[in-house]
Amino acid sequence: MYQFGPHKITESQVFFKSKYCLGLVNLKPITPGHVLVISRRVVPRLRDLSAEEATDMMLSAQKIGNVVEKEYQCTSLTTVIQDGPQAGQTVPHVHMHVIPRKIGDWANNDDIYDELAGKNKIRVDNEERLPRSEQEMKEESDMLRPFFTSIEE
Amino acid sequence: MYQFGPHKITESQVFFKSKYCLGLVNLKPITPGHVLVISRRVVPRLRDLSAEEATDMMLSAQKIGNVVEKEYQCTSLTTVIQDGPQAGQTVPHVHMHVIPRKIGDWANNDDIYDELAGKNKIRVDNEERLPRSEQEMKEESDMLRPFFTSIEE
Repeated sequence: MYQFGPHKITESQVFFKSKYCLGLVNLKPITPGHVLVISRRVVPRLRDLSAEEATDMMLSAQKIGNVVEKEYQCTSLTTVIQDGPQAGQTVPHVHMHVIPRKIGDWANNDDIYDELAGKNKIRVDNEERLPRSEQEMKEESDMLRPFFTSIEE
Repeated sequence: MYQFGPHKITESQVFFKSKYCLGLVNLKPITPGHVLVISRRVVPRLRDLSAEEATDMMLSAQKIGNVVEKEYQCTSLTTVIQDGPQAGQTVPHVHMHVIPRKIGDWANNDDIYDELAGKNKIRVDNEERLPRSEQEMKEESDMLRPFFTSIEE
């Protein structure tokens, strides 16, 4: 069991482990393959990470980005840290969104930000996006895990 | 003289230098203190950076974020890499946006993404946001530079 801010994360949601970070599948991904890189330590801000932790987060995002971009047949990536409540951070635990992107994923490709902001203006069918089931998250995590060499704590 | 993709960057726009990265002030910042961290090498994608370069980018962003958040009286940061054209990247050279944030900077704080996407829906007065003058950029860069210990190439 891991912590993502106040939330419990089960082992089945973790597809990537490095020394200081974890890769998690998402309860409500805004696009297929939208995953999170979080620090193992529960701290709210990027500035709270040691140099080793911040480094690990970037290298983890780089590795994870390469895999999800390819596996979800995408051609670009959006990586975002909402670092603090005034930046839209809702879980007070440093996390980087890694979002595979492709042509036509939104009417205007930058409309993804409406999704990130929870505005759902564009894909109306997503307006009541439901949390995914444990099973669905486990399946995605199981698919992604073999791409990475995990380091246990 | 430095390169940001196809664009020439003058020394006066550079306020931060590390071994592999540069910190630049912005021609059209979407908020005061919105700056860029770019790799010194002109490569388009995050995956093109070596581990040393990616690490340096993250640690540079962390240092720069701490300074701009404080100096522009902010309380959060948005950091974004638009990694590839389908993610809205317009200059084919890896760069991380570091954007200081505070309460009320946009009507809805997540409306910053409309600005990032160049939609300017919210702050109508910004609809024809003009490029800043060389002088204005130089002044901001001169203000920020003393906060950092620069490493020359």
